[in-house]
Amino acid sequence: MTDTILDPAFLQPVRLSPDGRVLQLLDQRALPAREIWLELREVEAVAQAIESLAVRGAPAIGCAAALGLAAGSWGFPEATGPWREAAAQAIERLARTRPTAVNLFHALAHMRAALALAVGDAAALRAALRQAALVYVAGELQACVRMGEFGGPLLPEGTILTHCNTGALATAGWGTALGVIRRAHQLGRDIRVLADETRPVLQGARLTAWELQRDGIPVEVIADNMAGALMSRGQIQAAIVGADRITRRGDVANKIGTYTVAVLCRHHNIPFFVAAPWSTIDLEMESGAEIPIEARDLDEVHLHGGVRMTPAGVGARNPAFDVTPAELVTAIITERGVFRPDELAAAAAAAK
Amino acid sequence: MTDTILDPAFLQPVRLSPDGRVLQLLDQRALPAREIWLELREVEAVAQAIESLAVRGAPAIGCAAALGLAAGSWGFPEATGPWREAAAQAIERLARTRPTAVNLFHALAHMRAALALAVGDAAALRAALRQAALVYVAGELQACVRMGEFGGPLLPEGTILTHCNTGALATAGWGTALGVIRRAHQLGRDIRVLADETRPVLQGARLTAWELQRDGIPVEVIADNMAGALMSRGQIQAAIVGADRITRRGDVANKIGTYTVAVLCRHHNIPFFVAAPWSTIDLEMESGAEIPIEARDLDEVHLHGGVRMTPAGVGARNPAFDVTPAELVTAIITERGVFRPDELAAAAAAAK
Repeated sequence: MTDTILDPAFLQPVRLSPDGRVLQLLDQRALPAREIWLELREVEAVAQAIESLAVRGAPAIGCAAALGLAAGSWGFPEATGPWREAAAQAIERLARTRPTAVNLFHALAHMRAALALAVGDAAALRAALRQAALVYVAGELQACVRMGEFGGPLLPEGTILTHCNTGALATAGWGTALGVIRRAHQLGRDIRVLADETRPVLQGARLTAWELQRDGIPVEVIADNMAGALMSRGQIQAAIVGADRITRRGDVANKIGTYTVAVLCRHHNIPFFVAAPWSTIDLEMESGAEIPIEARDLDEVHLHGGVRMTPAGVGARNPAFDVTPAELVTAIITERGVFRPDELAAAAAAAK
Repeated sequence: MTDTILDPAFLQPVRLSPDGRVLQLLDQRALPAREIWLELREVEAVAQAIESLAVRGAPAIGCAAALGLAAGSWGFPEATGPWREAAAQAIERLARTRPTAVNLFHALAHMRAALALAVGDAAALRAALRQAALVYVAGELQACVRMGEFGGPLLPEGTILTHCNTGALATAGWGTALGVIRRAHQLGRDIRVLADETRPVLQGARLTAWELQRDGIPVEVIADNMAGALMSRGQIQAAIVGADRITRRGDVANKIGTYTVAVLCRHHNIPFFVAAPWSTIDLEMESGAEIPIEARDLDEVHLHGGVRMTPAGVGARNPAFDVTPAELVTAIITERGVFRPDELAAAAAAAK
């Protein structure tokens, strides 16, 4: 199995070099002004790229960790004992990068399981890691395409609101919520997109706008505080977002501001969809109250375009995620089908 | 009557020079990084300062127009006929600056009425304008102090959310919603403030944070999309905002994002207060649907700290205000007392 299983027509912001030694990342901090590809050879560099948001988006973080571990394993000792020790430490390092998205931990568990089954010398172990990583990424991409197939026909025509970035940049390619939007557009539905700019990191203004413009899907950017007013005037027909973790009861952790979109949708009787791969569902966690919420550097709030806008010495808060309770979610679109939040646990049990 | 009726302890961002020939404006675009005072001698310069947000905030715009007309009148012809003609044109010019806040039109009507009663030569007409302007500003300041007296005791202890800037910078001094917060703090109530940064112009991050820090009132800045999540965790006890126009039935036009705060308050059973001088109430307008909403330059959305963050060619929207229906407003705090929205019309009739 090689990279070529991935359709080259897809934008793949997280990929392995042909020789398997380099993780190639489209640096999302520089977009849309510049398209810079990072070439990462060591696990520590991969971990720092995740922490600094060079790559972000729950599924993409999982892909970067899996592929980055495979690439970094070229630097491990040749003797198999020390090689396995280095791999275990690398997995631990990657697990410490970001706490909220569950996909990272799924990806690392997938890699750990592949290693446990692998036999042979360092070359064989490296090959096993590489294959496991490519299988993981291919599965994530397939999941996105399937989500689009299930979700695309569900979107009403008109204006669709989305928050943060859930496109190719956030995944192995194609996207979760943005994949659903892409599929609806592909099906010829008359939709246009309003992209919440998504302060403080502006994934909507920078990344979602960039992806949709590339695809020729009509998009306008709004400040996060504008969607409510537009809904009150009947100018938004549905909202669709991604997820970083979904609990057994259907509570959804996602980018800060998602919860407010969900409350606004409920107030205006507008459907609120979540699109996420099945791996986002954390069946071991019952309630959203248990999800660890990452608090990021306050300078993300203080600075705008690199310029400090708040007075020196003034405090701020910067929770990176929030939790939308299941009650506010119309449906969860996965690669296994579309579910009401309260159907997740039964669907999981049936699949076992 | 001179400027000294205004307590010098108040920050007065909009004031007349002692000789009455210059409108002095604290340039709000430069805050908090720099405190720059503009010195404006001509009505056209005053109009442009209002349009470019050197001065903003519904009551402050009214004050700037009144004082700016008085200052600018020194440049009118000496013959009384042409003088009056120039004054009428100046009032028309100022009326075209910004459409949403009603205080501007009240201030100009007040000045027009003073002119209609005035007699004598150009010097006498100038003196009449100056006196009318100072009376207007003094009345606005008194209104703020009275709003604080009525509203301060209403605020619960804990964390108070506010949106945009409604402080001294937005008024003749002291503030509307921020004046209520100041009064509550003065009364010894244990409150801390969360300031919505208020994209796109960041009046919260820049101005509200600056004012509260000067006053020693605890304040933290949040992105506009964070308040909902904090409410869901019980971390906000009340919200208070200002208004640019309030209709007869109690619908409230205010800075974009206000409506979303009101919806969130309703969803979480948190009181949502509006503080505004009686002059903000437009008794001739029944419903908020009639209020003209200013659409501002899209670059306000595209740029952050002067840096374009959206891809070139991508669209945006920039409504500067939204309308919160009366049903979502807990109470309206004015200098005449505290009213439920549905009590406004009767209160106005009783006062006649």
